[in-house]
Amino acid sequence: MNELKNDRYLRAVLRQPVDVTPVWMMRQAGRYLPEYQAVRAEAGDFMSLCRDPELACQVTLQPLKRYPLDAAILFSDILTIPDAMGLELYFTPGEGPKFRSSITCKADIDALKILDPEQELGYVMDAVRLIRRELNGAVPLIGFSGSPWTLATYMIEGGSSKAFTKIKKMLYCQPQLLHQLLDKLTYNVIEYLNGQIKAGAQAIMLFDTWGGVLTGSDYKQFSLFYMHKIIDGLYRENEGRKVPITLFTKGGGQWLEAIAGTGCDAIGLDWTINIADARRRVGRQVALQGNMDPAILYACATRIKQEVKSILADFGQGSGHVFNLGHGIHQDIPPENPAIFVNAVHSFSSAYHR
Amino acid sequence: MNELKNDRYLRAVLRQPVDVTPVWMMRQAGRYLPEYQAVRAEAGDFMSLCRDPELACQVTLQPLKRYPLDAAILFSDILTIPDAMGLELYFTPGEGPKFRSSITCKADIDALKILDPEQELGYVMDAVRLIRRELNGAVPLIGFSGSPWTLATYMIEGGSSKAFTKIKKMLYCQPQLLHQLLDKLTYNVIEYLNGQIKAGAQAIMLFDTWGGVLTGSDYKQFSLFYMHKIIDGLYRENEGRKVPITLFTKGGGQWLEAIAGTGCDAIGLDWTINIADARRRVGRQVALQGNMDPAILYACATRIKQEVKSILADFGQGSGHVFNLGHGIHQDIPPENPAIFVNAVHSFSSAYHR
Repeated sequence: MNELKNDRYLRAVLRQPVDVTPVWMMRQAGRYLPEYQAVRAEAGDFMSLCRDPELACQVTLQPLKRYPLDAAILFSDILTIPDAMGLELYFTPGEGPKFRSSITCKADIDALKILDPEQELGYVMDAVRLIRRELNGAVPLIGFSGSPWTLATYMIEGGSSKAFTKIKKMLYCQPQLLHQLLDKLTYNVIEYLNGQIKAGAQAIMLFDTWGGVLTGSDYKQFSLFYMHKIIDGLYRENEGRKVPITLFTKGGGQWLEAIAGTGCDAIGLDWTINIADARRRVGRQVALQGNMDPAILYACATRIKQEVKSILADFGQGSGHVFNLGHGIHQDIPPENPAIFVNAVHSFSSAYHR
Repeated sequence: MNELKNDRYLRAVLRQPVDVTPVWMMRQAGRYLPEYQAVRAEAGDFMSLCRDPELACQVTLQPLKRYPLDAAILFSDILTIPDAMGLELYFTPGEGPKFRSSITCKADIDALKILDPEQELGYVMDAVRLIRRELNGAVPLIGFSGSPWTLATYMIEGGSSKAFTKIKKMLYCQPQLLHQLLDKLTYNVIEYLNGQIKAGAQAIMLFDTWGGVLTGSDYKQFSLFYMHKIIDGLYRENEGRKVPITLFTKGGGQWLEAIAGTGCDAIGLDWTINIADARRRVGRQVALQGNMDPAILYACATRIKQEVKSILADFGQGSGHVFNLGHGIHQDIPPENPAIFVNAVHSFSSAYHR
């Protein structure tokens, strides 16, 4: 395998010394980039783009050509797993993702497929291999999956949700049924992520987008428990290096201590948490990723730089910080603004690594 | 004025001894009740219901006839203020609230009306007077308003929002413009709430539904600062009793200390916070309201009772707890379930008040 030219991201996630704070952006390969929209138009629809390794590779690399980012992240969707398990994902313009079938009872869960990632999700594995080849060691490649809880919300609600009525009903009325689904998902997520690691992913990120709609006690039982199992089930080394794992629960700021206890290497923070407080609470155990409000990228250069400085100062001296947004980049951000952001992180952070 | 027969709610908000923990439900007068739907159908649309004091009074009292609740809350909508300021609120079936005009620039803000609540919002004041008369001292009446920040989100986005793109753009690119709007809203909210107090509201609740989408620092500057101003501007006594104020910021669990510092009497908690932790953090300064996940009301009687017991045990001995849901009741809750909930609070809580 090719030598890694820029390993800042991997070093920072493992709290090893770096020259400057590494930075990447959640959803960095996305609709705010006109070149992404061109490829997306070529592909036809969103899922065709995900299913075509050549095109997925192309859009993964696009933001790296524009900005000096310190990591690439596989372009894919968290819902490829439930799709491959048999629910048939589709997208209608202007609405969120939807499934042709949704989960309502034990029979539905029993019917879900146990996945072999090289079979049902071979297109993702091919994309990982292709991206690694094309990256040619420029920066590490992050693989990812949705958390079992987050995937289950879409599978039970049949798509996006605001009140999470159906899954909450199952949680409170038939908790064992929900656990059965989460167990099956956990198995598949482990296989999927180990597949990505074997194919060349050098770090892993688990997105728990909807863990924050749970009570603290339910979060631990129905979301964190399964993420912990996933961490325990993953290959933690590849090509002679540790494969670090970052857990991101949106709205999880109240549970950082519990998240740090899973054995993850880093916690992704949303923008509602002060990173100085987060470091005080868990910074001796894990690295922190985040956490600028993505909406700051609407602002002028001065304001963007001010916010970068403030977050760097809040984190303070030393390694263990991967700069990022607190959530995915908005689709209508002017593409010149991420350049200001990324460069600001690099130029203002060197003072914190002497 | 008529003597108050049940003052548990007022006593608990002021952390005075009570026999049992008082309980009410956010959005207790609402669509889950068939009798509400009947009145709503009679009224035609939602705003006609809000604008008719007789009907608003009728639906305010409906849940009290079904359940032994310890407080009534005025039936109205938080968007009556921006509507009266000139934006023209309307509702389309299946979608959220919308405004015919929205706020985009200084001229829009300058054009907004300064309100005299007995004029532009006289229908709300009439409803308050009527409800007080009909309640006849059975339980206290809570008046309410949306927080300036929360109202501003609807006024700038033109309705409901998911990403809050427009207001965040204003916040980061033209903060002074946003402050001007929040100032004007704050003035109107103070007038509106003082109008409600004069008309007979015995307690006040401020709903900051969208404060939780801000960073901690922005929350303090753009939401909490103005709620603090409102608290300072309200009549705090009426009919010889203190008028307690409860602040509810959904997603505000990380900022309880700052919220308690405003001089509010109680903090409303959403269900993501553990109430034992909240009490430890701020329970010597303020009372706590909440915080059962509203989705628990989908579950069976055993599960509902178990959750009530667990929250009571977490709060522990003594006064200072107003039991409630952590958010508004869902519209498809079977109406027999709130009875189980309310009775459970009363019967299991007496042990904590000996």
